[in-house]
Amino acid sequence: MAMSGEDRLIARHFRPLATHPGAFGLTDDVAALTPPPGCDLVLSCDAIVGGVHFFDDDPPQSIGQKALRVNLSDLAAKGAKPAGFLLTLVLPATTTDHWLDLFAQGLGLDAKAYDCPLLGGDTASTPGPLTISIAAFGTLPTGTLVRRSGGHNGDRLVVTGTIGDAALGLKLRRDAKAAERWNLDADQRDHLATRYLLPQPRNVLADALRRHATAAMDVSDGLAGDLAKLCAASGLGAVVTAAHVPLSDGARKAVAAEPELLETVLSGGDDYEVLAAVPATALAALHEEAHAAGVPLTEIGRLVAGSGETRFIGEDGHALTFRHASYSHF
Amino acid sequence: MAMSGEDRLIARHFRPLATHPGAFGLTDDVAALTPPPGCDLVLSCDAIVGGVHFFDDDPPQSIGQKALRVNLSDLAAKGAKPAGFLLTLVLPATTTDHWLDLFAQGLGLDAKAYDCPLLGGDTASTPGPLTISIAAFGTLPTGTLVRRSGGHNGDRLVVTGTIGDAALGLKLRRDAKAAERWNLDADQRDHLATRYLLPQPRNVLADALRRHATAAMDVSDGLAGDLAKLCAASGLGAVVTAAHVPLSDGARKAVAAEPELLETVLSGGDDYEVLAAVPATALAALHEEAHAAGVPLTEIGRLVAGSGETRFIGEDGHALTFRHASYSHF
Repeated sequence: MAMSGEDRLIARHFRPLATHPGAFGLTDDVAALTPPPGCDLVLSCDAIVGGVHFFDDDPPQSIGQKALRVNLSDLAAKGAKPAGFLLTLVLPATTTDHWLDLFAQGLGLDAKAYDCPLLGGDTASTPGPLTISIAAFGTLPTGTLVRRSGGHNGDRLVVTGTIGDAALGLKLRRDAKAAERWNLDADQRDHLATRYLLPQPRNVLADALRRHATAAMDVSDGLAGDLAKLCAASGLGAVVTAAHVPLSDGARKAVAAEPELLETVLSGGDDYEVLAAVPATALAALHEEAHAAGVPLTEIGRLVAGSGETRFIGEDGHALTFRHASYSHF
Repeated sequence: MAMSGEDRLIARHFRPLATHPGAFGLTDDVAALTPPPGCDLVLSCDAIVGGVHFFDDDPPQSIGQKALRVNLSDLAAKGAKPAGFLLTLVLPATTTDHWLDLFAQGLGLDAKAYDCPLLGGDTASTPGPLTISIAAFGTLPTGTLVRRSGGHNGDRLVVTGTIGDAALGLKLRRDAKAAERWNLDADQRDHLATRYLLPQPRNVLADALRRHATAAMDVSDGLAGDLAKLCAASGLGAVVTAAHVPLSDGARKAVAAEPELLETVLSGGDDYEVLAAVPATALAALHEEAHAAGVPLTEIGRLVAGSGETRFIGEDGHALTFRHASYSHF
């Protein structure tokens, strides 16, 4: 009996990624995964949709990488070590074997780089856009998950990397003349574009976050809105010095040219950096470990008494106001 | 700071389903799940797409139930007890709050009935059809997962329930005159239609399968094709007596009226029954336990030497031939 198209597709493109013994070589209905003794399993799921989270003509490799990395970023912020993932691939009839080859190539690169093998999955056809849903799993010592809710009054707020690049990169994709208006050189333009295309999840920081952070989350829907969520979960407020929020050279130039872009930077999505609350006494140690791991870390403000209110203080000493604090699909 | 539309949607419709402590009330980025000591975690994922796996005007409750049940069926066939699920909901802009209310209602009913609470999820918008991807988790004693690959030469093949109803139910949905041609009464028509709309996963049989089956899988892509997969994984062939395959009254009438529908019955999808290989010596015990659990169980054939070949023997003693042994999306 001949293999179906679906089985051929799985065998050709995805079996090579299923290196975990619990994946059973993708020849069973399920996968098996058991966290090591003394460990909890952490579950993340995030979907990306063509025309919404990526452009259909983005390189297939980077689409595969982005699909996995948005999940790896969640695991990183919670202090978990990647263990594997399930892939649901919903494909338009126009998807070619060549596209799938490149997509699986990108996905495979990251599965290896982040030690996060494919465990199983499902494929389906759709009359709509390409849709990729990934459930990723991580492990950490029992009870050590870094919640959003653990922040204390007075904790310092830190973020990794730079903020707002991806939101500006998306604007560049949509507006060919923006790079010129923002006075970007080629490197700065490429930097912003790449930051939209390919998140850099901070998994190397997971252990340090577990040791030092009282609360953390990844910044995926905009710093302002995500900070409000962390504050609400911790039953606190926050004060951030807007000028302390770390910007790349390109982002700095863009905001200088069009000051209203500061809102895009602070509330746009797709940063995939870590936002964490850290006791003042632990700040030096976290800085040191982040430095050793090669991850830029910047203090931007602190948690204060309150119930979810966040204030971003501008150059004039007044709080900024945003039209939309965070990206929402609805 | 006001909640985004996405946060409101989650809080209103889905937080009530997140009764597992590891769901953190859907207020964190991830969920936590730890199998009991001595247990493995089993992972399943299956997506359903509007216009492909269900009709957009199907009752929203049953769409929610079907999305979960297709996954519960995988856990059942592998011998696992449901532990929870992640929900990725990809929604067209036209989705109403009322639709979501009913969808969450159906999903919530089954989360409770099958003791499989919502652990977490993701929502995204799409210009395409409603797409629901679920990753479901189950637990079982370490090493006892019922694989496809464990069958032995001579094992008896059994299936639960009846085969082919859902494929015929789908034909009824597409062809208003079929019920008349097949001489179905109202009950038989409703039975076939319901079997397409709402799978009946056999989770009550999970423990018995673990005790008695050497190999098992759920029949989701058609009995003939799925049996071929079980045989290939076990390194064996199979002989099935077509007349022994259990049919509902409606399916029997349909095949009597249009004999070519036998292929639809034996190779159509969406049965969500269990196919298992059982040593002859364990057959009586499995029958007894299935009877006690209220699950019809029928012996249809046996595993024989071979490498994935399956023969369905017809009334004339010759093997049937199929154009398509199983449903494939590609």
